[in-house]
Amino acid sequence: MAARLTAEFLKDWKNEVNPDLQKERDTCTFNIQELTFLLDGGQEKTKRRKELENILFTKYADLFSFKKRPSQNKSEMYESSVAKSVKVFQMKREYGWTEEDFDMTTRILNYDFALSLHHTMFIPAIERLATDEQKAKWLPLAQSYQIIGTYAQTELGHGTNLLGLETTATFDRATDEFVVNTPRLSSMKWWPGGLAKSSTHAIVLAQLIIDGKNHGMHPFMLQLRSLDDHMPIPGIKVGDIGKKVGANMVDNGYLILDKVRIPRQNMFMRNAVVTREGKFTQLSNNKANYATMVLVRVNIIGWTKDTLRQAACVSTRYSAVRRQTTLKPGTPEQQVLDFQTQQLKIFPAVAASYACHFIGEDMYTSYHAAYAEIMKGNNRKLAELHAQSSGLKAFLTDMSTAMVETCRRSCGGHGYLISSGVAENMVASLALVTIEGENTVLYLQTARYLMKQMANAVSGTKTEGPTAYMNRDFTSYVCPIDTKQDCRNLVKLREVYTQRAHRVVMSVAQKLQMDMESGLPQEVVFNKNMVALVRAARAHLHLTVIDIYITKLGNLRETSSTELSKVMTELCNFYVIHGMVQESGDFLEMETLGLSQMDWLRQEEMEMLAVLRPNIVGLVDAFDMHDETVASTLGQYNGNAYQNLFESTQYEPMNQTEVHPAYYKHLRGLLKDQTLSKL
Amino acid sequence: MAARLTAEFLKDWKNEVNPDLQKERDTCTFNIQELTFLLDGGQEKTKRRKELENILFTKYADLFSFKKRPSQNKSEMYESSVAKSVKVFQMKREYGWTEEDFDMTTRILNYDFALSLHHTMFIPAIERLATDEQKAKWLPLAQSYQIIGTYAQTELGHGTNLLGLETTATFDRATDEFVVNTPRLSSMKWWPGGLAKSSTHAIVLAQLIIDGKNHGMHPFMLQLRSLDDHMPIPGIKVGDIGKKVGANMVDNGYLILDKVRIPRQNMFMRNAVVTREGKFTQLSNNKANYATMVLVRVNIIGWTKDTLRQAACVSTRYSAVRRQTTLKPGTPEQQVLDFQTQQLKIFPAVAASYACHFIGEDMYTSYHAAYAEIMKGNNRKLAELHAQSSGLKAFLTDMSTAMVETCRRSCGGHGYLISSGVAENMVASLALVTIEGENTVLYLQTARYLMKQMANAVSGTKTEGPTAYMNRDFTSYVCPIDTKQDCRNLVKLREVYTQRAHRVVMSVAQKLQMDMESGLPQEVVFNKNMVALVRAARAHLHLTVIDIYITKLGNLRETSSTELSKVMTELCNFYVIHGMVQESGDFLEMETLGLSQMDWLRQEEMEMLAVLRPNIVGLVDAFDMHDETVASTLGQYNGNAYQNLFESTQYEPMNQTEVHPAYYKHLRGLLKDQTLSKL
Repeated sequence: MAARLTAEFLKDWKNEVNPDLQKERDTCTFNIQELTFLLDGGQEKTKRRKELENILFTKYADLFSFKKRPSQNKSEMYESSVAKSVKVFQMKREYGWTEEDFDMTTRILNYDFALSLHHTMFIPAIERLATDEQKAKWLPLAQSYQIIGTYAQTELGHGTNLLGLETTATFDRATDEFVVNTPRLSSMKWWPGGLAKSSTHAIVLAQLIIDGKNHGMHPFMLQLRSLDDHMPIPGIKVGDIGKKVGANMVDNGYLILDKVRIPRQNMFMRNAVVTREGKFTQLSNNKANYATMVLVRVNIIGWTKDTLRQAACVSTRYSAVRRQTTLKPGTPEQQVLDFQTQQLKIFPAVAASYACHFIGEDMYTSYHAAYAEIMKGNNRKLAELHAQSSGLKAFLTDMSTAMVETCRRSCGGHGYLISSGVAENMVASLALVTIEGENTVLYLQTARYLMKQMANAVSGTKTEGPTAYMNRDFTSYVCPIDTKQDCRNLVKLREVYTQRAHRVVMSVAQKLQMDMESGLPQEVVFNKNMVALVRAARAHLHLTVIDIYITKLGNLRETSSTELSKVMTELCNFYVIHGMVQESGDFLEMETLGLSQMDWLRQEEMEMLAVLRPNIVGLVDAFDMHDETVASTLGQYNGNAYQNLFESTQYEPMNQTEVHPAYYKHLRGLLKDQTLSKL
Repeated sequence: MAARLTAEFLKDWKNEVNPDLQKERDTCTFNIQELTFLLDGGQEKTKRRKELENILFTKYADLFSFKKRPSQNKSEMYESSVAKSVKVFQMKREYGWTEEDFDMTTRILNYDFALSLHHTMFIPAIERLATDEQKAKWLPLAQSYQIIGTYAQTELGHGTNLLGLETTATFDRATDEFVVNTPRLSSMKWWPGGLAKSSTHAIVLAQLIIDGKNHGMHPFMLQLRSLDDHMPIPGIKVGDIGKKVGANMVDNGYLILDKVRIPRQNMFMRNAVVTREGKFTQLSNNKANYATMVLVRVNIIGWTKDTLRQAACVSTRYSAVRRQTTLKPGTPEQQVLDFQTQQLKIFPAVAASYACHFIGEDMYTSYHAAYAEIMKGNNRKLAELHAQSSGLKAFLTDMSTAMVETCRRSCGGHGYLISSGVAENMVASLALVTIEGENTVLYLQTARYLMKQMANAVSGTKTEGPTAYMNRDFTSYVCPIDTKQDCRNLVKLREVYTQRAHRVVMSVAQKLQMDMESGLPQEVVFNKNMVALVRAARAHLHLTVIDIYITKLGNLRETSSTELSKVMTELCNFYVIHGMVQESGDFLEMETLGLSQMDWLRQEEMEMLAVLRPNIVGLVDAFDMHDETVASTLGQYNGNAYQNLFESTQYEPMNQTEVHPAYYKHLRGLLKDQTLSKL
């Protein structure tokens, strides 16, 4: 009987757009497509993206659809993600896709790509670590997918402290081989993606030992599995490290090596050489290796915009179609998007996704400029780039992760469902705060750099680029915000952020110096100021973020329509003000602002919510994410959240039978046996 | 070959305690057992807890062990959780366990209890909603587990706004029945725990319709599944709503009702009656129903201490055994627990778990006092209790969820593994911010109450209890913190929190009044001050929290040893200071504190970390959680995190074969077929 209702519930909704959402689109004040082209980097790129989306989601709709994913278990997720990866690799080979096409594809697939490390770590590592001869051997194999590889560095006992890695590669002069070994539990490799089940090869980082002498960490190419039957090579034990809170499509693995022998030539010798005789030579310290680490962090910075876009898109659209409660008795229930508290949960994420877009672009450009310099032997910019990319990776992933979670909560209970998409996004983005440099460690790296730069500035050596403000003297600083209207003046707001960063960094630098002068050992001084150092790094990075955002906005104004410029300026303004309200304590403690200014900023923050409200759906529509990329029951373009939710339950394994096996095994006995059961 | 290493890695570790952890225990300055007895509520309760633990984890070790859980898929998690529930129900029936025993058992099992709603919602709802005659029929069935039930209120389209629920129960005078119906998609029940597969019955909330007139929402007892074969009754469609980000052991369900007929007697008529003739009478508005909602929130407040204990225990123990990096070159790697930034991630959670313990106790006592009054017809305290329990549920779940996540991150990459226990704890605790009242909605409820109370106080009607401070006049307030030493004076710190709460609440009240006087409609005024109202509620609740904590600490000092009092005072002091640093903006904006005070507080916060450091392991050991309750590879009593991690991988399904099926289906083709594949 209930089947009748079920059928009625779902009829005719697929092609209808929810009227509340349609109304939002109809009243948007700017041209959404103009913004889409801008975000994609031009109309041609938008066109190419849509071509790729069409191949993936029309030609191979079944393979690439997200619909079954929420109901898959770990092993099934892995298997279907391998299937997607393989198909993409085959298409790349077949159609000669560029690296840009490939990157775009993984983004379109929302990084559901089990074999991604083959392209993002394995091949780049060969390119940067191997000699030309070694490259000639390994690159063609990797590029044609005759081998699949990963990069095995982290161990069970060591992640942050790379110097402490315990895997050894001992030279055996007799056979011209290295013996690679994980001598104890804590030394087993643990975490590398693709290591457990997918990879045939791995670049293993190990301590090089010759005649009992340790020559430090070097990379070794190691075969893990037979190319005949994929079975692990003798002496090798590989396995999966178990279920994770997210990203379960990737087979993160462990690796135990029991004195595995590899030819001497399998040590990558671009940076250091071991001869047939066992003579070790360190070549000029090639910074290209160092640059790889920077690149990975720059990539993560780019990902933050993607996670924010997805979350902002889902929560905005869902909040436009969800109606709940009314503040005026007797009137229809309101769109929850109209409640001020709801807006404050969502709008910062929308604004931040734009901030991250511009910063990602900027860092990518800086990286490539610096990399070109490095290749010419000029490392002048590297320290700055390293400090900025490390710090921004930490700052932006902390920010994006928090905002994605806030968006998830803005979807109420339904945001707790995996089918919401935003829950899966949240747990996946949690990985970003730990991988490729744990965020606290990265803040401290940036802070050390800032301390050096401040010492330079104070001693009269001019600092440049993102730390140029350190040369300035803020002793006679007066807050430039004189009226509430000044809160709309981005130049003045930037000045406020600058003074805050200057003062926080300066005060920590002075504190460190005082403590040193009091005779405390350096390590004690550093540890007792660690929290303050993180605070200093964050103040500096916050300035960097709004500085890049405001600068990029300036460029945009010159090339865009008046309507678009207007809304983009409002959004940036909101983001900058929101940051000050969030950190009001810091701004007040640094005497950057007074109480009246803080009060104006709070008022402006609320007023800006109302200003942004009419365009907020347009701002997320402009991401132009394919429904399969959004991968959410709550955030599809048509807005039919309830139908999508109900439809999603058909894939749930527990719904494949009316009665669950747990009834026969356990529940029936309880319900039926009313004599006391045998305990 | 690698098998040799594997065996070596794991030998002889089960009974050895990690020496770093042993050292921490040896140097603890207070008697851990004294604190355990205090937390349990007396030595007898500790003894009873250990008896129950022994039954569960020794007698039925296999059934109740957590070890396989991280590797289970959703359906398996559900099944094993049903098995646990059934065994506990049977033991309760067999041994005549008290409700207290039962509650203790679910806590020992860390709430891995699929059928929990039967006891926490279904039976209490019968007790409070049914007439004595109805109780005589249904309670014995439920208490002896001849039926298993749940409480079905939330719908796909309505959660927060209960008045908007769309399920109807229409009286059919001809047959003396109600026709219960979910007329449209958004009206289907969606979310109730135990609804999908477990429950045979549900108390369904529906709009009562008689002769076309709506008499509001009432509870109806509905049979869902046959007691013969557990198949759904005709007209009923039930199913699972799909995978969630956490708590997948519970079968949250949907329910579609296609004009299902039930006898008139199945409406629970304690609060309202429908006669055979269809005459509706609302009885005196019984507040006992209202009290159920309060009880559920009081219970959630109690749970926050449990989630915090688990997270604090795992991250503290793991940080004691994890060694990484050293600040002094040439010395061994340090325990990460020694780094200041790490301490600031973990110690607030330890302190907060104690705060939540005391607040939980206090609210539980208040609830039972109020409930006794209500039963005598005295509802005087109910509004206060409702506002406080709603607000504290929101404040404490927001706090605990954030702290659990920070603890998880403090475990680095390994905290991302489900086997860490803290990851699963985190995703489970995320549910608490949404269930039983979404937190923002709850803050606003509390805020409305505060506005009323402030209006009373201002107009000369004295307020009592938690809002008594509103009667005070703070116009001539001077910050009582005159020296850095004053930061250790809890009476002065409480005064500071009081002024902050008073001023925030007062300023919002004044703003609302101003806006009303400007002629804006009430709903506009409320919406444009929503964010400020939440802020006011949080300031008030923060005061409540530290006030109860400080008061309870005072009682404790009278009955405890000097050593224990000392460390408990330090912990409380740290918590109170930490809260002020976290919200420094608020305290400065309200002119509660000046810049020197804020500076002292920041210094004290760091100094307190060093003070607490020697006892932090003792403080989490005192929770005396069984290893199976901690359920974590990283946080077991023996501290052998790496061995536990490695051991956990044996249960991972992907490790049951050397080669994954995905190889044969997908990867082999890519690796071997080097001609261009068919696309």
